Amino acid sequence: MQLFSYFRSSAAYRVRIALNLKGLPYDYKPVHLLKDGGQQLSEGYRALNPAALVPTLVDGDHVIGQSLAIIEYLDETHPAAPLLPATPAARARVRAIALSIACDTHPLNNLRVLKYLKHEVKAAEEVKNAWYRHWVDTGLAAVESMLANSSETGRFCHGDTPTLADLCLVPQVFNARRFGCDLTAMPTILRIDEACNALPAFQKAAPENQPDAE
Amino acid sequence: MQLFSYFRSSAAYRVRIALNLKGLPYDYKPVHLLKDGGQQLSEGYRALNPAALVPTLVDGDHVIGQSLAIIEYLDETHPAAPLLPATPAARARVRAIALSIACDTHPLNNLRVLKYLKHEVKAAEEVKNAWYRHWVDTGLAAVESMLANSSETGRFCHGDTPTLADLCLVPQVFNARRFGCDLTAMPTILRIDEACNALPAFQKAAPENQPDAE
Repeated sequence: MQLFSYFRSSAAYRVRIALNLKGLPYDYKPVHLLKDGGQQLSEGYRALNPAALVPTLVDGDHVIGQSLAIIEYLDETHPAAPLLPATPAARARVRAIALSIACDTHPLNNLRVLKYLKHEVKAAEEVKNAWYRHWVDTGLAAVESMLANSSETGRFCHGDTPTLADLCLVPQVFNARRFGCDLTAMPTILRIDEACNALPAFQKAAPENQPDAE
Repeated sequence: MQLFSYFRSSAAYRVRIALNLKGLPYDYKPVHLLKDGGQQLSEGYRALNPAALVPTLVDGDHVIGQSLAIIEYLDETHPAAPLLPATPAARARVRAIALSIACDTHPLNNLRVLKYLKHEVKAAEEVKNAWYRHWVDTGLAAVESMLANSSETGRFCHGDTPTLADLCLVPQVFNARRFGCDLTAMPTILRIDEACNALPAFQKAAPENQPDAE
């Protein structure tokens, strides 16, 4: 398999963790989001992924974009080390936590959005940074509440093995720290983030350990 | 089952289509996103859904937020009229189209984001409207390319029965029209939208046909 990735992309980071947890080897294909005016915008990459976003997974004849679609695909094709629990209700809980990050939090702070805010909306640096923190605070406060108020939360977001929810949480916490967000009101998230980062699969997937890290 | 919904919420609209396609009856519980400073922000609703967003599905003891988590749950618990195809690669394609809308397009134009742009960023009305159109254009152009360049596209986004992808596409097209976006460069999307809206399950789910429609 080949993974088109950028070391700092949090969507690519999710997929790297999934591949590592499942013990699946892959070729790392770097796509630099800032060089050459954004390599993801090139004609060649767009032919692979029309959304011009990372990650893209290539598995034989199959070319798959969207991190959550890739992770569900990996979970269906390589069921060992499952990333979703067994019952529909538990699966729904895990997916809802993951989507709270993947839909409600991360897309608002993506690189292309921050660029648009700066160059088109002409938002000042402090307005842009307040925007960033506002959506991280809002999104992660909801996730903290979902985690802190449920008996299904364990060592990880759901029980005692990592799931799709943890794969989304850890990259979001990484980003939040990078932008100096205050996470002290989110003790459950911090505890789970620490438990995840103690695992080699998460460590190996971290931005600083990628071949294109700067 | 109970569905907490707002007639114009495109995330709730997706779930209404799913329930109708599967022929599942439900109680409609309106949550007015503008009245009372936003009923979704009330303590009562937050206890049900900490993200303070619609929709929420209540099925017996299970309370589920996030439209895509709800739809996957309905598909797992009521497999008749499946909303995902049978093979992992086809499922990945459908999920990727759905997520291109649910992650990359819709969240940027959600009501709370437009409010933040206006009140906190102090964006002028025309800047806010340009923002809206920019993200619709970007998101739907990617989806048009995914649909137009694949032999797997049929009468609907994937083959000849509606899937999760169509459930996301139709509400997004509805929103795009409401905000006057130009969709003439997206013939495949327009053709599929028309095919979907010919079905009673989609018609019955439309905003204007909800009990809380204004």
